[in-house]
Amino acid sequence: MSKLWQKKETKLHPLVEAYTVGEDYILDQQLMPFDIVASKAHAKGLERIGVLVHEELIQILSALEALEDEWRNGKITITIEDEDCHTVIENYLVEKLGDIGKKIHTGRSRNDQVLVAMRLFMKASAKDIIDAAKKLAATFLAFGEQYQNVPLPGYTHTQQAMLSSVGHYMASFVESLLDDIDLLIAIQKHIDKNPLGSAAGFGVSFPLDRAFTTKELGFNTTQINSLYCQNSKGKFETLFLEGLTQIMMTLNKFAHDMLIFTSKESDFFDIDDSLVTGSSIMPQKRNLDIMEILRANASVLMSGHAMIQSMSKNLMSGYNRDLQLIKKPVMEGVRLVNDSLNVLAVFMQGIKPNQKNIEEKITKDIFMADIANDLVKEKNIPFRDAYREAAANRDTYVIDFQKNIASKMSLGAPGNLNLDVYKERLNMLEK
Amino acid sequence: MSKLWQKKETKLHPLVEAYTVGEDYILDQQLMPFDIVASKAHAKGLERIGVLVHEELIQILSALEALEDEWRNGKITITIEDEDCHTVIENYLVEKLGDIGKKIHTGRSRNDQVLVAMRLFMKASAKDIIDAAKKLAATFLAFGEQYQNVPLPGYTHTQQAMLSSVGHYMASFVESLLDDIDLLIAIQKHIDKNPLGSAAGFGVSFPLDRAFTTKELGFNTTQINSLYCQNSKGKFETLFLEGLTQIMMTLNKFAHDMLIFTSKESDFFDIDDSLVTGSSIMPQKRNLDIMEILRANASVLMSGHAMIQSMSKNLMSGYNRDLQLIKKPVMEGVRLVNDSLNVLAVFMQGIKPNQKNIEEKITKDIFMADIANDLVKEKNIPFRDAYREAAANRDTYVIDFQKNIASKMSLGAPGNLNLDVYKERLNMLEK
Amino acid sequence: MSKLWQKKETKLHPLVEAYTVGEDYILDQQLMPFDIVASKAHAKGLERIGVLVHEELIQILSALEALEDEWRNGKITITIEDEDCHTVIENYLVEKLGDIGKKIHTGRSRNDQVLVAMRLFMKASAKDIIDAAKKLAATFLAFGEQYQNVPLPGYTHTQQAMLSSVGHYMASFVESLLDDIDLLIAIQKHIDKNPLGSAAGFGVSFPLDRAFTTKELGFNTTQINSLYCQNSKGKFETLFLEGLTQIMMTLNKFAHDMLIFTSKESDFFDIDDSLVTGSSIMPQKRNLDIMEILRANASVLMSGHAMIQSMSKNLMSGYNRDLQLIKKPVMEGVRLVNDSLNVLAVFMQGIKPNQKNIEEKITKDIFMADIANDLVKEKNIPFRDAYREAAANRDTYVIDFQKNIASKMSLGAPGNLNLDVYKERLNMLEK
Amino acid sequence: MSKLWQKKETKLHPLVEAYTVGEDYILDQQLMPFDIVASKAHAKGLERIGVLVHEELIQILSALEALEDEWRNGKITITIEDEDCHTVIENYLVEKLGDIGKKIHTGRSRNDQVLVAMRLFMKASAKDIIDAAKKLAATFLAFGEQYQNVPLPGYTHTQQAMLSSVGHYMASFVESLLDDIDLLIAIQKHIDKNPLGSAAGFGVSFPLDRAFTTKELGFNTTQINSLYCQNSKGKFETLFLEGLTQIMMTLNKFAHDMLIFTSKESDFFDIDDSLVTGSSIMPQKRNLDIMEILRANASVLMSGHAMIQSMSKNLMSGYNRDLQLIKKPVMEGVRLVNDSLNVLAVFMQGIKPNQKNIEEKITKDIFMADIANDLVKEKNIPFRDAYREAAANRDTYVIDFQKNIASKMSLGAPGNLNLDVYKERLNMLEK
Repeated sequence: MSKLWQKKETKLHPLVEAYTVGEDYILDQQLMPFDIVASKAHAKGLERIGVLVHEELIQILSALEALEDEWRNGKITITIEDEDCHTVIENYLVEKLGDIGKKIHTGRSRNDQVLVAMRLFMKASAKDIIDAAKKLAATFLAFGEQYQNVPLPGYTHTQQAMLSSVGHYMASFVESLLDDIDLLIAIQKHIDKNPLGSAAGFGVSFPLDRAFTTKELGFNTTQINSLYCQNSKGKFETLFLEGLTQIMMTLNKFAHDMLIFTSKESDFFDIDDSLVTGSSIMPQKRNLDIMEILRANASVLMSGHAMIQSMSKNLMSGYNRDLQLIKKPVMEGVRLVNDSLNVLAVFMQGIKPNQKNIEEKITKDIFMADIANDLVKEKNIPFRDAYREAAANRDTYVIDFQKNIASKMSLGAPGNLNLDVYKERLNMLEK
Repeated sequence: MSKLWQKKETKLHPLVEAYTVGEDYILDQQLMPFDIVASKAHAKGLERIGVLVHEELIQILSALEALEDEWRNGKITITIEDEDCHTVIENYLVEKLGDIGKKIHTGRSRNDQVLVAMRLFMKASAKDIIDAAKKLAATFLAFGEQYQNVPLPGYTHTQQAMLSSVGHYMASFVESLLDDIDLLIAIQKHIDKNPLGSAAGFGVSFPLDRAFTTKELGFNTTQINSLYCQNSKGKFETLFLEGLTQIMMTLNKFAHDMLIFTSKESDFFDIDDSLVTGSSIMPQKRNLDIMEILRANASVLMSGHAMIQSMSKNLMSGYNRDLQLIKKPVMEGVRLVNDSLNVLAVFMQGIKPNQKNIEEKITKDIFMADIANDLVKEKNIPFRDAYREAAANRDTYVIDFQKNIASKMSLGAPGNLNLDVYKERLNMLEK
Repeated sequence: MSKLWQKKETKLHPLVEAYTVGEDYILDQQLMPFDIVASKAHAKGLERIGVLVHEELIQILSALEALEDEWRNGKITITIEDEDCHTVIENYLVEKLGDIGKKIHTGRSRNDQVLVAMRLFMKASAKDIIDAAKKLAATFLAFGEQYQNVPLPGYTHTQQAMLSSVGHYMASFVESLLDDIDLLIAIQKHIDKNPLGSAAGFGVSFPLDRAFTTKELGFNTTQINSLYCQNSKGKFETLFLEGLTQIMMTLNKFAHDMLIFTSKESDFFDIDDSLVTGSSIMPQKRNLDIMEILRANASVLMSGHAMIQSMSKNLMSGYNRDLQLIKKPVMEGVRLVNDSLNVLAVFMQGIKPNQKNIEEKITKDIFMADIANDLVKEKNIPFRDAYREAAANRDTYVIDFQKNIASKMSLGAPGNLNLDVYKERLNMLEK
Repeated sequence: MSKLWQKKETKLHPLVEAYTVGEDYILDQQLMPFDIVASKAHAKGLERIGVLVHEELIQILSALEALEDEWRNGKITITIEDEDCHTVIENYLVEKLGDIGKKIHTGRSRNDQVLVAMRLFMKASAKDIIDAAKKLAATFLAFGEQYQNVPLPGYTHTQQAMLSSVGHYMASFVESLLDDIDLLIAIQKHIDKNPLGSAAGFGVSFPLDRAFTTKELGFNTTQINSLYCQNSKGKFETLFLEGLTQIMMTLNKFAHDMLIFTSKESDFFDIDDSLVTGSSIMPQKRNLDIMEILRANASVLMSGHAMIQSMSKNLMSGYNRDLQLIKKPVMEGVRLVNDSLNVLAVFMQGIKPNQKNIEEKITKDIFMADIANDLVKEKNIPFRDAYREAAANRDTYVIDFQKNIASKMSLGAPGNLNLDVYKERLNMLEK
């Protein structure tokens, strides 16, 4: 099929074509519905300024819907010759509608077309991810509530430090995820700006009704300067991946903890058979591969973020095709974060704390700070002195897990988890 | 001096001490005032729950103020033996106040002490950077207004594409910086959470009035879960650097443009002698070294961000000393972004567009899309056909820069810059 | 199909299975032939120590060849249920040979199986890349020789600095690529170590003849310590990608130069139509998209390298499934570097220097260092003084490009390129 | 002081000066001796081609030695006004020798001056690091030999997998370090190329005897093409940091293991008091801070490597001041790797395995693969079947650590460590 920019019969060298198109024709499958939505809005906008008459608009909208149907039914796919979804759409309209179809590209460029499609993709993806994160936060919260006062060692420097609890531990991830969600909402809002109408980066000589397409596409606001629309490419995607990476940093920590907490040396949690894999050579192995893959996927997100930064480095203002390659890390990031959140929600259904073993593994050392603090209260001596005297009281100390947990009454400590705040935040998010 | 955690006479191997302290004793100079502020709030909080009586509080506050004075006057510095500012503060109080001084560490740990100090540092730094960014945005805006309709080639693929203008070009950076500022404000708000009172990560058995210290220190809210307070370390700093890096991405593009725009091949801007450096071997050279250093500093920020992500990878929940090393990329990032914004504001005072030369360097090619669009309007043919016919009309096309600029009337195009929106946004930020 | 590690009927949760397998079943298509080669060597080794009798070996080798045929003909592919190529191979053998097939896994583990397959893959890929790089170096060299004394401005700080030539310019890339090839050979040699026989990382109780499989598989040496075999995973792949990234750094610079050198402002090279793409909105555009994609692909390699480093961070000694995910950046890197080298060789067939235009674009400024050096010689004054006097002589200076080029007679300067050294290095590589 | 490139009285804006000089004046303290050595070689070379007469050479060499003395005694330091060490050297010579001093800059530029100084710095640093790495490898080897057959659990997926031994474990790091050393030697050789004489990147019109300075400075070969000399900047430093990072990847794994192996849950090693730090709030804590800092320093190296890659992205051929900023990550990397190797050598003097506890912590599960392999041999059944039958034999299995270790006789397994190979490699390195 002919390409949007071809003036005469193509002579592009096939290796050059393959090299420049890259994986675009595959990745653009995911952009197609967003490009169609944006094309509809653009067509409506063209009618408002008289470039299209109403009847032409009707035909274009109808053809775009037909295209979407054919695409959803797999009748149309993007080939390497098509180059991208933008070409498929225009070629389809021209084929179906002739001259009317050719008008769709009035007042726009592939440059703003891909910008608006990617932005709609990111917005929709953020919504999915927020939903999955909320679900996981609720799952962590329920788990933490169910086993609230089951003791768990708290660590610093990889060493047992002070007593924590399953409730305290799980609440830390609930609060972390809730913050991650807040952040992703803020990021989503930051990028919720309509670039359609910026054309190739320098506007057009048509009085496009950009406020209309902003509203039609559900954007929060219009990104005004047409050159900035282009220059924000790379920046917005980096930021979007930052939001996703923050989630993966939360999950990376949980995964790393789980690998240590389920080692034989700790054995704090029982895991259902459906969650563990074995070894081809060691019959006893029950491996938590999901947690290892999850840890590694955090690195995929981090390097995807770094990739976009690196690609954006030392580029002139205006469109540079370099940034075509940011689609892949963005789309891969979206998929991995969604999958990671969902697989963790499954995981949480298959574990439970092994309380008896946990209690056995906790040594008296973990209570040394408590002994010191008790001395502060009992003898009214400065903490620094009590700290130095605590060792002598170690042997006579009687462990009472529940009493110890309850004694930590500072806000956010094991004895004062304040879980209601998280429930309220989750409820607020539902609205 | 003795360290907070020393139980008996120190035997720490000097190489181990030097290796673990690293540059902390230097970096902590910047944390000292924030640690003092937080220590005051903690002391006031201890009085509220009866750990300190009023008279003790007065003495501690007074000693902390004396310490701050001595520190500001350079009488006290942090040595490698002190390890960090936290030790200096406590040792100072103990030396001055004896047992009363020892009470300051009740209900807190160095873990939440460094958390709260870093957070206050980031908040204060964000404020400085926002101010510098506002100033630069205003400078760009004034420059864009002054030379609003001076033509400038617009580029795509490093090729002259369509006509832009100095006003259009500068406005793109104004809008970019305004968005960067909005983002940094949102990030500042995200991290504006009080971790003081989380102690070593597991709370304390004192009923600390955390809401009070939140208010006292001007935090937006209390970070509840004490383990999450620790686990957010690395995450918040990464996010903070993301905000700073977004600014550097804006500036990197401007710097890269300037290097090309001031090459002899382009020569679009005249630069004052005070802004250029020479060569040790080529007498003619007038080099824009600031722009090269600025480009490179974007990489420093990016890799600082990646460094924190990497350090945070596969760490257990709770305090890990690994993250001590995040101070450096954060503090270096703050300094470089401030310096970059400020040096650019100086730079803008020393350049002006070289209009005559710009107009000579613009070829007719840049108007081809306009010729095509004219055909669309005149002959009412589809853009796709006009696009193919435009070449024939190239030779007879008469360049009129001002008319062309004015003709781009779509919102955010050179003929419709809408600069008032930016003025309003700047005004709103002042409030 | 059953998995190697399954003891009873599978109950693995489908989401967990999909998440942990990831894209392995696709990526392993590329590993299959190497896994088959290594399996043959392992089988032969087992016969040498009596685990297999000769007849069993013959059957296994024959079945492995049949498998390879079926795989090459597309009759066998790896499915998500297979998980990886290792499972496919063993299942195939068991299906065809029953108990004999089950013996293939004696004395090995999937851990050393994937190690050895990846290493063979990297070795084979390095060979391909070296061939492509040699070809491109030869192409650059021929181009440089053909247009050896065509002048070209030399730049520092993005400013015309001193006179260069097309020969000088191209030779810089020839020498760069030759060094990159030397490096990749050194890296290939560094990783040319046989891990087969290390089993799960702790060896086996069979007296495997590892020296034999080392020789049989063409490895340079045996990687001895079985735990180190595992621990070198991530390290060797990082290093391999470093070698590939060094090539991309060379190509990135060439691509960036070309984008600037072919802009209208410079216009130093004529490019064949088959190498340029157009714009959907600007009819005049002749864009060098390949160079932009090439620039961006350097970032893909860099972040792939960073990804493996990040994944390797804070992992215990021994196998960790995290590192399963390094296959993708390695394989993607190999593909992109090969494609980049090959597309550039095509590109070089379609460009030629535009000498007339180059000479017009070179300003007298570029000769100022020469004027200063002439003064040093003529007046026997120190360079530092000549440097300050040169400006006065600018106007009377008569440009003679060829004389100027010839005058730079220091080794490696435009007048003393010493291209024969590169020819000799290329010839040596052929041997 | 005046700068090398100043033609008239300086007017450089102080903010611009501070911004562009950055930390160069501090970092260049480390370059000074290398710049002096290279300046001597350059002066000798100038005499060989008649630019300097013998008497002038003698005076220059003598002045350079005086300068080095003054610098070593701290009488001369580089100030921000000097900008860098190159300016200090030339200004010193001019001040002492007048016109003769001015001649030193004939035939060179700061561009090749900094190149050659950095390269000499990297070569010298590599030598130091190799020495420290050899010492640590020898330390690991001695430790492994001393406790060769002390059992240690071997892990996969963070789970006890098969029996390892202290000897086996330590040997893995010995082999890793020996490979790292080989790699660094190969890298050192790769960058051992003399760029002096490439001047600003385009050579000079003097017949510099570059082969002479190559020999004089002890370089392996001359880097021919003068433009490539510049273009290799960034590439060579990236590669150098790759070599250093590979060492840190080895050490990161050891550090991560140690943190887990010395947690209370494992407690496999006793650590001397001189190596552990305490907590300000928890009196019992014995923290391995060095291992945490060491883990984090691996991230510093990784991001330093990424920083140079990022800075090198999309730069034109020829000198770009951006790359001035690579000095810092290179110098910081050198310091951290040296310190890390040295502190680990100290660490190894203070630990010993806690054999009794290790044996208690090893569960029967670790022998399941052995049980399966025994079945293969005893009953002559395929491994895959034995694997499925092993569980039934678990309870009757009698643990014999030494027998089990000895039974792993495959090369590189716990029972066949082949430590002599490492001794031989270490001996070869000494030569």
